[in-house]
Amino acid sequence: MSTADIGVIGLGVMGVNLALNLSDKGFRLSVYNRTPAVTSEFVAAHGQERLITAADTPEQLVKHLERPRVILLMITAGLAVDTVIGQLLPWLEPGDILIDGGNSNYQDSKRRYRELATQGIHFVGMGISGGEEGARYGPSLMPGGAAAAWPTIRDMFQAIAARVDDVPCCQWLGDSGAGHYVKMVHNGIEYGDMQLIAEVCQLMQHALGMSRDEIADTFAAWNAGRLESYLIDITSRVLRQRDSDGSPLVDKILDRAAQKGTGIWTAQDALERAVPLTLIGEAVHARMLSARKAERVMAAALLGSAPVAVAESTRADCLAALHDALYAAKLVSYTQGFMLMQAAAEAEGWILPYGDIALLWRAGCIIRSRFLGDIKNSFSRAPVPPSLLQDPFFVGEVKAAEAGWRRAVILAVGSGVATPALSSALAFYDGYRCASGSANILQAQRDFFGAHSYQRIDRDGSENFHTRWLGDGVEEQLP
Amino acid sequence: MSTADIGVIGLGVMGVNLALNLSDKGFRLSVYNRTPAVTSEFVAAHGQERLITAADTPEQLVKHLERPRVILLMITAGLAVDTVIGQLLPWLEPGDILIDGGNSNYQDSKRRYRELATQGIHFVGMGISGGEEGARYGPSLMPGGAAAAWPTIRDMFQAIAARVDDVPCCQWLGDSGAGHYVKMVHNGIEYGDMQLIAEVCQLMQHALGMSRDEIADTFAAWNAGRLESYLIDITSRVLRQRDSDGSPLVDKILDRAAQKGTGIWTAQDALERAVPLTLIGEAVHARMLSARKAERVMAAALLGSAPVAVAESTRADCLAALHDALYAAKLVSYTQGFMLMQAAAEAEGWILPYGDIALLWRAGCIIRSRFLGDIKNSFSRAPVPPSLLQDPFFVGEVKAAEAGWRRAVILAVGSGVATPALSSALAFYDGYRCASGSANILQAQRDFFGAHSYQRIDRDGSENFHTRWLGDGVEEQLP
Repeated sequence: MSTADIGVIGLGVMGVNLALNLSDKGFRLSVYNRTPAVTSEFVAAHGQERLITAADTPEQLVKHLERPRVILLMITAGLAVDTVIGQLLPWLEPGDILIDGGNSNYQDSKRRYRELATQGIHFVGMGISGGEEGARYGPSLMPGGAAAAWPTIRDMFQAIAARVDDVPCCQWLGDSGAGHYVKMVHNGIEYGDMQLIAEVCQLMQHALGMSRDEIADTFAAWNAGRLESYLIDITSRVLRQRDSDGSPLVDKILDRAAQKGTGIWTAQDALERAVPLTLIGEAVHARMLSARKAERVMAAALLGSAPVAVAESTRADCLAALHDALYAAKLVSYTQGFMLMQAAAEAEGWILPYGDIALLWRAGCIIRSRFLGDIKNSFSRAPVPPSLLQDPFFVGEVKAAEAGWRRAVILAVGSGVATPALSSALAFYDGYRCASGSANILQAQRDFFGAHSYQRIDRDGSENFHTRWLGDGVEEQLP
Repeated sequence: MSTADIGVIGLGVMGVNLALNLSDKGFRLSVYNRTPAVTSEFVAAHGQERLITAADTPEQLVKHLERPRVILLMITAGLAVDTVIGQLLPWLEPGDILIDGGNSNYQDSKRRYRELATQGIHFVGMGISGGEEGARYGPSLMPGGAAAAWPTIRDMFQAIAARVDDVPCCQWLGDSGAGHYVKMVHNGIEYGDMQLIAEVCQLMQHALGMSRDEIADTFAAWNAGRLESYLIDITSRVLRQRDSDGSPLVDKILDRAAQKGTGIWTAQDALERAVPLTLIGEAVHARMLSARKAERVMAAALLGSAPVAVAESTRADCLAALHDALYAAKLVSYTQGFMLMQAAAEAEGWILPYGDIALLWRAGCIIRSRFLGDIKNSFSRAPVPPSLLQDPFFVGEVKAAEAGWRRAVILAVGSGVATPALSSALAFYDGYRCASGSANILQAQRDFFGAHSYQRIDRDGSENFHTRWLGDGVEEQLP
């Protein structure tokens, strides 16, 4: 009965494409779907020319597998994952490997890792990015969990992953929930990148008066430079797409963005860990504001929304500024994203391989870009800079982009186009490079109204002081 | 033995001051503190001329009280509250009233309300603002929970609360966790107000080259106008305070702001409820960035931080712009805060009295201001506008402030001073008053890489479409 190298449970779009990808690379499969017809249709369509066997039950799937069994769950994140694990458990043995390839919350993966470890089952939470096409021909894979599983599954998943310079976009990220955590941050960064592009499109359209084709041409040109990335590329394609009447399709698409939750998780996680992840936060909120379409339409009638376009003669200058703004703001976003991963690693006891993370995002996934190669280089330096914004290469890049970035935000403010992510990134940059910020005012206020105490710049930061503001004005050192 | 009207448990700064306030109004007290010496010292100091009795145990405190007993817990939020409730429960009877006056998370208050209701105990979660001084002479009180308790405790707490035009700053807010929820949002708004003031100070100092006394004079002048508020007032006082060497004290205070959690809760809650609460989010993140002092000092050396001051001749114009920016951004922050409460009320089944909330924040609490009277008026209109930004009065105000607001943000961007809250507020405003935003680009991208589908402006918003972007480019309507 043991005839398969891996079992795949869940034959939705992602499960089917990963199964075919695994099969392409010579692995023998047993597949199972909750709805039997889905399983039999899949095997009927592909089982003739491939070594794919249908399992009628989780039990049968387990019995199809060589030991130690390797089972990939491609089912909707949430309770369903626990249900299926419960169905499999009676048939599994210590040393077997369960891989959750869904978009699970890393807290769930931490819990499953812990619970299954007590039964000797190796749990792996693996983030998968790249959508349908990536799953079929080479995704970016972010596995973490039971390190003992890695030698067994490494060749299999590195074989199906995307590759850059023959390096597979699949590296071990750490124990417990590290894999799904890194995937969550990936998704958050994706929200930020998309929002930045959308803001620049809006500026081009409304402040510069450009047509959709002109905007598409600009993104295509940018994609040959340092902004080269999948999202810039597809934006130019999206903008060229025509509706049935020949007009640009995007102008018919409702400006109400949905979200599936991973961006929100990232923003919440940053709040919990006290990491100033402002850009992704603004991107998530921008989607929430977009959802209030009816309210915005009413507000526009009251508050006016006719933006002021600038003269065409200055368009080339403005476009150069927008390019630099997009690049610099993206650098801020990745700086914040890696800050968040560093804070998480410290709190969770993970040793995250930051350079590998940059590398495995270089292909297969939605945020793939040339830029990630430069990030990888930063993490190869000794010592590693305190943040990407302090890396010698990026310091030069951001200083070169700074003037254009400021011009772009001023253009937005002056023309009334909303650029929450571009603006927030600049505010972060100015706050980050400020040795003496405005928080002394906050501390003085807090001590005034709540006796919360403050520290002094001319004393050790661990010494606390309180001033009797409304009394004799004398400062006292607290014990 | 039944000689007291109310029991106060916990004699920290807030407990002591509330107890004295209650006593001033003629209520007889029994008090208890975990550390017996604290109880006996308090009663020794005040028990002679006041009707205050010491209780040695929670049991004794209960026995001192008239039925139904009213007990106010003034202890540190968290597990300690549950511990004390557990100590009291054996001695309580159905109909007794337990009030938690700490800064509890409203989720905990929801749970305690539910659990105690099963035993017939009326639980009230009451937010208290105003710090030590407010507690002593008139705080803002935000009670919610078991409505059956309100008739019993109403006179007592309205007697000790702050008053505006003889209306007490204490109104019933709703069942379950409504009281602590409103207090949480109050604190979030407080974070936003403080951050806005700190940003304006920083601009005055670095972009306008003003001295601390000049800045203090400006805030004092503003406090006579529409910005009149406690926080503006104390800012001018804080700025005038001298250190022992005669120099402004604020310049010796470390620019590293602490936070106790309620701002973070507010930001997290907004993410959960999909409300675009950007300004408070930026304020919370600004404190987090301020905490990275050492990293900022290093970054300043690499990325430069010398701001460019503008000519003194334009100072008056710039100050008028800063005034308008502060006012308009504050309006955005309150708009977002009330949006959040409206979303929470809908989800939790609360009927929050928004006008009363504005009124009860008008005195006693940290965010008290003239502005809150205008907010109260908005909620008295019929129909209530969809948001404060669509209120006829505020539409006029924000349109009048808009030009100055834009000039202030452009000043910040040009001079390199970080103004995350001012900038974020303007981006929200421009997004909010935009009938056709940039989210169509996001939806097109999402459909391109993940087949997530989109809606069309020329079709019903419930119909979903997908384009075969990389295939024949044909759009299909999804079932």
